[in-house]
Amino acid sequence: MFEKLALIGIGLIGSSIARAARQHNLARTIAISTRSAQTLDEARALGLGDTYELDPAKAVEGADLVILCTPVGAYEAVTRAIAAALMPGAIVSDVGSVKAHVVKVMKPLLPASVHFIPGHPIAGTEHSGPSAGFPELFINRWCVLTPEAGTDPAAIEKLAGFWRAMGSNVEVMDPGHHDMVLAITSHIPHLIAYNIVGTVSDLEASTKSEVIKFSASGFRDFTRIAASDPVMWRDVFLTNRDAVLEMLGRFNEDLSSLQRAVRNGDGPALEALFTRTRAIRRSIINAGQETAAADFGRPHGTDTPAPAPAEAVQRDHGGGEDA
Amino acid sequence: MFEKLALIGIGLIGSSIARAARQHNLARTIAISTRSAQTLDEARALGLGDTYELDPAKAVEGADLVILCTPVGAYEAVTRAIAAALMPGAIVSDVGSVKAHVVKVMKPLLPASVHFIPGHPIAGTEHSGPSAGFPELFINRWCVLTPEAGTDPAAIEKLAGFWRAMGSNVEVMDPGHHDMVLAITSHIPHLIAYNIVGTVSDLEASTKSEVIKFSASGFRDFTRIAASDPVMWRDVFLTNRDAVLEMLGRFNEDLSSLQRAVRNGDGPALEALFTRTRAIRRSIINAGQETAAADFGRPHGTDTPAPAPAEAVQRDHGGGEDA
Repeated sequence: MFEKLALIGIGLIGSSIARAARQHNLARTIAISTRSAQTLDEARALGLGDTYELDPAKAVEGADLVILCTPVGAYEAVTRAIAAALMPGAIVSDVGSVKAHVVKVMKPLLPASVHFIPGHPIAGTEHSGPSAGFPELFINRWCVLTPEAGTDPAAIEKLAGFWRAMGSNVEVMDPGHHDMVLAITSHIPHLIAYNIVGTVSDLEASTKSEVIKFSASGFRDFTRIAASDPVMWRDVFLTNRDAVLEMLGRFNEDLSSLQRAVRNGDGPALEALFTRTRAIRRSIINAGQETAAADFGRPHGTDTPAPAPAEAVQRDHGGGEDA
Repeated sequence: MFEKLALIGIGLIGSSIARAARQHNLARTIAISTRSAQTLDEARALGLGDTYELDPAKAVEGADLVILCTPVGAYEAVTRAIAAALMPGAIVSDVGSVKAHVVKVMKPLLPASVHFIPGHPIAGTEHSGPSAGFPELFINRWCVLTPEAGTDPAAIEKLAGFWRAMGSNVEVMDPGHHDMVLAITSHIPHLIAYNIVGTVSDLEASTKSEVIKFSASGFRDFTRIAASDPVMWRDVFLTNRDAVLEMLGRFNEDLSSLQRAVRNGDGPALEALFTRTRAIRRSIINAGQETAAADFGRPHGTDTPAPAPAEAVQRDHGGGEDA
C-alpha cells in the first residue's frame, strides 16, 4: 500500500501502528525515529521497524507516508526538522488528541508539495512506551481525519484505507468540532480522574493506605485513566484549553446542583439522575465500543470471568456497584 | 457453620452470598425473602435458597444468621418487621454501603438478645438483581465489620469466619471512620461518574451520538460506575451526606486549582499532577485490588487480551491512554 512508512515517535500508538502495518503488509519498509536513544534501542530490540534513526529527517527520506506519534508538544520541532526532507506527494499525518492546534502549528511549516491530513485514532490503553503496543489496538475503533478543504481526495482515501486495513472505522471531521467532542469524551474524563486521584494522594498517609485497600469500591476505575502518559496529557490540556474549559464549565454547573441535591437530601432528584445515566452505557455497549461483561470482564476471584446477564443490567433494586 | 441463613433482599450481593454460602457449605438451610414477588420467583428459579418468603419475619424464624441485603433505605421497615421474630443469640448483619446511619436506624429496633454486627463487603459490579450474582464475587475483597464496643467477640469472630470462608479479608472498623473512607473511595467516584454521564446525556442529540461513538477515549470507563443501581445509590447519598459533602469539598478545591492551571497554561503543574497519580494505581495493583492488564483486560479487537508489560506502566513518554 505504501513504499515507506515513517513513524516519528514510537510509544503505545506508534508501536501499535508499526505492528499492525507489518501484520497487514501495509508498507514495504517501516522507518522509526524517536528523540531518545534508549527508546530507539527498545524499538529495535522489539523489531518494530526496518530502519531506526535518531534524526527524523533521515527517517522521512523517501517516505510516502509520515505519521507523527510524539506528544503534540513536540510537533513544531519535529515538523521543522523534517519539512525539507519530505518527499513531494508524501502524505503527512499524526495521531494527536487535539486537531485545531496541530493544524495551526504544522500547516505553515510544511511544503505545499505534501498532502497534510491530521488524524486521531480513538484507541489506547493506560500503558506507555514501545512495549505497550499491540496490533489489535485499532480494531473496531474510530479514526478521525481532519483534512482542510481542498485536500486531494485520493490522498485522503489512501490514508483512510490504511486505517481501515488496521481495523479502524474512519470518520472525516472539522478540527474544531473534533476538539469539542473529544473535550467531553476524553479530556474532561481524564481531568476529573487525575483530579480525584490527586485528591486522594493528598490525604494523610494513614487514610491513603485505606483508600488503596478499599479501592475496589469504585475509586480504582479512576486510577486507570489517571495512569495515562503525563507528557501527552499535559500537552492535550495546553493545546485544547478553550474546549476543555467550556465543557468543564458544564460539568461544574451540574456538579453544583448535584451537590445541592445531596445537601438537601433530595432523593427523587438523585434517583432520577442515577437512572438516566444507565441508558448511556447501554448505547455505548450497543455501539460496540464497550464490553457488556460485568466489571469490564475483570478477573474475579479464581479468574472466573464475571458474567454479563443482559437482563440484569436493567434491574433497579438490590445489588449494584458496591459502595 | 450456621444452621439457618436468612437473606433479606436478593440482588447482586445477596444472591452472591447465597451462591458462595451454598458452594462452601456455610449454612444448613438458606431462607430468602424479598419484597417483590417477581424477584422472589426469580431467586426460586435460580435455586438460590431452600425457602422463599415474601414476609421477612417468616424467613428469620430460627435463623442464627440474618443478613439484610436490601437498599439501606428499606432497613427501618425490614428491622421493624423482623425484630419480634428474631431468635435469641442470632447474629444480625447487613451489607450496606454506609454504616453509622445503619447503626442509628437498626440498633434501637433490635432486641438485646441478638448480636448486631453491621457489615460491608467491598465488592460488586455494575449489574443488579439476583441473576447478576456469582460465588467468586468476594474472593480477595475486603469485608468491613463495624460492631459496637461490647459486642460478643465470639459472635464477631463467627461472622468474620463466614466472610473469610467466602474468600474475603475481614477488617473491623468504627462506623464513622468507615463512612469517611468509603466517601472518598466509593461515594465521590460514583457521584462524579454519575455527574459527567449526566452532563453528556444533557448534550444536544447530535453531539450525544458522537460522544457514544468516540467513548473509547475515556468516557466509557465512567459509564460503568454510572450504570450502578440507582435506588441503592440514592440511599447512599441520603445517608452519608456529611462525609460525602466533606470529601466533595476537597475534590472541588483541587478541581478549581486544576482548572486554573489549564486556564493559565501551567504545563509544569499539570505534568506534576499527572505523574503523581500513577503511583496510586501501582499501589492498588500491588495490593491485589486491581488487574495490571491494560484496559482492565478488556477484549481488544479479535478478543486478544491486551498485554500488561509491567515495565511499560512506568514509561513516561509516547502513547498513554488515547485521548
